[in-house]
Amino acid sequence: MYISVIGAANSDQETARLAEEVGKLIAEKGAVLVCGGLGGVMTAVSKGAREAGGVTVGILPGTNRTEANPHLTIALATGLGYARNALVVQAGDAVIAVGGEFGTLSEIGFALQFGKPVIGLNTWELNRKGLKDSIVAVKSPKEAVEKAFQLAGAKPARSPKG
Amino acid sequence: MYISVIGAANSDQETARLAEEVGKLIAEKGAVLVCGGLGGVMTAVSKGAREAGGVTVGILPGTNRTEANPHLTIALATGLGYARNALVVQAGDAVIAVGGEFGTLSEIGFALQFGKPVIGLNTWELNRKGLKDSIVAVKSPKEAVEKAFQLAGAKPARSPKG
Amino acid sequence: MYISVIGAANSDQETARLAEEVGKLIAEKGAVLVCGGLGGVMTAVSKGAREAGGVTVGILPGTNRTEANPHLTIALATGLGYARNALVVQAGDAVIAVGGEFGTLSEIGFALQFGKPVIGLNTWELNRKGLKDSIVAVKSPKEAVEKAFQLAGAKPARSPKG
Amino acid sequence: MYISVIGAANSDQETARLAEEVGKLIAEKGAVLVCGGLGGVMTAVSKGAREAGGVTVGILPGTNRTEANPHLTIALATGLGYARNALVVQAGDAVIAVGGEFGTLSEIGFALQFGKPVIGLNTWELNRKGLKDSIVAVKSPKEAVEKAFQLAGAKPARSPKG
Repeated sequence: MYISVIGAANSDQETARLAEEVGKLIAEKGAVLVCGGLGGVMTAVSKGAREAGGVTVGILPGTNRTEANPHLTIALATGLGYARNALVVQAGDAVIAVGGEFGTLSEIGFALQFGKPVIGLNTWELNRKGLKDSIVAVKSPKEAVEKAFQLAGAKPARSPKG
Repeated sequence: MYISVIGAANSDQETARLAEEVGKLIAEKGAVLVCGGLGGVMTAVSKGAREAGGVTVGILPGTNRTEANPHLTIALATGLGYARNALVVQAGDAVIAVGGEFGTLSEIGFALQFGKPVIGLNTWELNRKGLKDSIVAVKSPKEAVEKAFQLAGAKPARSPKG
Repeated sequence: MYISVIGAANSDQETARLAEEVGKLIAEKGAVLVCGGLGGVMTAVSKGAREAGGVTVGILPGTNRTEANPHLTIALATGLGYARNALVVQAGDAVIAVGGEFGTLSEIGFALQFGKPVIGLNTWELNRKGLKDSIVAVKSPKEAVEKAFQLAGAKPARSPKG
Repeated sequence: MYISVIGAANSDQETARLAEEVGKLIAEKGAVLVCGGLGGVMTAVSKGAREAGGVTVGILPGTNRTEANPHLTIALATGLGYARNALVVQAGDAVIAVGGEFGTLSEIGFALQFGKPVIGLNTWELNRKGLKDSIVAVKSPKEAVEKAFQLAGAKPARSPKG
């Protein structure tokens, strides 16, 4: 099982605390954590997972691993710029958004386009006439990770759809 | 000036009518239209622009031009799948969303991450505690295109930021 | 018909002269020219095509159109870095290499992997035990463009193969 | 240290044997193996590294992990098609080519464009007037891995250059 966690490169202390707890719980359940490999939420979730003995993968926008946070088992330089956002969610069986700014929004859009479950913890609320918000809003890291595993299991990775 | 227009591959008649009018107005103002090259809003906006004598560019997800709509001056097969969404907005000086589903949401996220103005016509409303909705909501194709030109002029294409 | 022309960002005068002639002949035959949009061979081939009334498309590695050469009808900023090399060849029905360094080599590899005809003018020679060099070597711009049209016609754009 | 190994999805027994030995030696030296994640050379090198206790990463072209070979620690679905070739080499500090067909050629081109050392074992020979073949040709898996570590150490990952 691969869980992608998305969130901003800058985060306040409370958001970082939530992300770290999400990482810990993902690792304890034995899934691989995939993230964007940089700071903020990406650092916090990687730290949480790594300290709990988990495997962490960071998919970086730049051409050099030196921009990676220090809590990654595997750091992949892509050179794709922010188009790498698509890869961060493509690699996961479910996606958890913790807080998040515009990059996170692009990743939520991709995840939903790819048919992957998206769990939101203090993240964007979406509203569109005729469409319900497809993000599963949760209240705690524990609930986020439980939902992610439950929905990823029910809905295995599929081909993208328009 | 390049204006990217984003929206779903399937659209109702009213949305298609709005998109076609947006395309016509972009062409009349002399800008290049960039879109995802497929159906629905992409077809309608391309048709509107082309019939008004404009230049239309479609950036396709697949490896073959045969999936392109018939109203493109230039159809580019990328083979990147939906990661091509990043390119559709990267190529524009401003972005107009007409309706839209999840792919459109990913493009709105990228456009805002890249610092490009986003004009919305019957599209997603975003809500995030502490952040205001950065989409400029408009009521008509005319207002959409006027805003796009005004904001693109004020805010020329920049490097992406986190 | 779309013809991709590939070659180095720095070129000597003779190579630039050949590229300019290739561009002119592509335009005269009514095909769209696709290139990487930067300097050297890319500038020369765009200039030749544009001055002959052709349509020229440049697919740029960076996030900003300002790096484009001045002879492009359409300049597309991708932000993908050199991964954009894949797109330059994906977009064409045939590929002509004029001179070229390492980036050109990556494009030749992609073109052959995608099953597209590759015509070479003073470019790389490939040697691999058990495989023949799949580049069609030619002696002049005229021969290059004739071969490209002939082979592109015989072998329309297909899906990539391993 | 990350070593990328490139080669064809179909390989004869002798090439597979060489690749497996390369994988084993990379793992014994403690580097992460990066490859394209599919069959042939990619399977053999992953198997060799994994059985020697190493960490193996496969960067897949499709949208689904099910296409991955069974010897990967981490399998990343990208959905980028063969543009993912750029990522396979971008992620490594040095690149070893074992045999190889056209996709491998695109990867060799990228690696040289990115300024990364390329070691070749029964792979393409390149010839271009005025440029020497920049592939370091070796005779054995042992020599390949030693050269890769030596040159990667001497020449750390850099930004790409034209």
